Amino acid sequence: MWSVCSEQGMSMEKSEAPMYVYESTVHCANILLCLNEQRRQGVLCDVTLLVEGKEIRAHRAVLAACSQYFSLLLQGQKDQEPLINLPQKVSALT
Amino acid sequence: MWSVCSEQGMSMEKSEAPMYVYESTVHCANILLCLNEQRRQGVLCDVTLLVEGKEIRAHRAVLAACSQYFSLLLQGQKDQEPLINLPQKVSALT
Repeated sequence: MWSVCSEQGMSMEKSEAPMYVYESTVHCANILLCLNEQRRQGVLCDVTLLVEGKEIRAHRAVLAACSQYFSLLLQGQKDQEPLINLPQKVSALT
Repeated sequence: MWSVCSEQGMSMEKSEAPMYVYESTVHCANILLCLNEQRRQGVLCDVTLLVEGKEIRAHRAVLAACSQYFSLLLQGQKDQEPLINLPQKVSALT
């Protein structure tokens, strides 16, 4: 679903085709939905969070993009598939 | 920046605090901006694309979320940090 279609200023002297830029209103949300579906299925996950005895698989890059806490925690990680034990005050409620 | 604040139907019989749900209009875009900034800085990248002799570091999960081609290609990858040589018809133009 594309919401904007605008022709860019572009020289047509060399009989080139006009250039169009498409902007989607749903692109961002769709990618996050796909990433969440990957996470639910354990696809391409590279970190495991341990919280209230429950293991939750996730993507490091997404956690770091959403949270300064995870950004600092995960950028220092050298393990290939680290297991992160979250503080007890964190709930596993999803 | 929060755009919607709506009280959910919830029993108040036990003198519980009301529950609010906040929805952000910019959350999705912000996360993708952060992921792109990570990619530009090579942070938490786990795949390298080789295209027109140029190496581009990226996040496997994001590529797979955006593209069926990468989804099929990357889910079969066993390497820790694979190097993907893209077909010659693909341009490195960014």
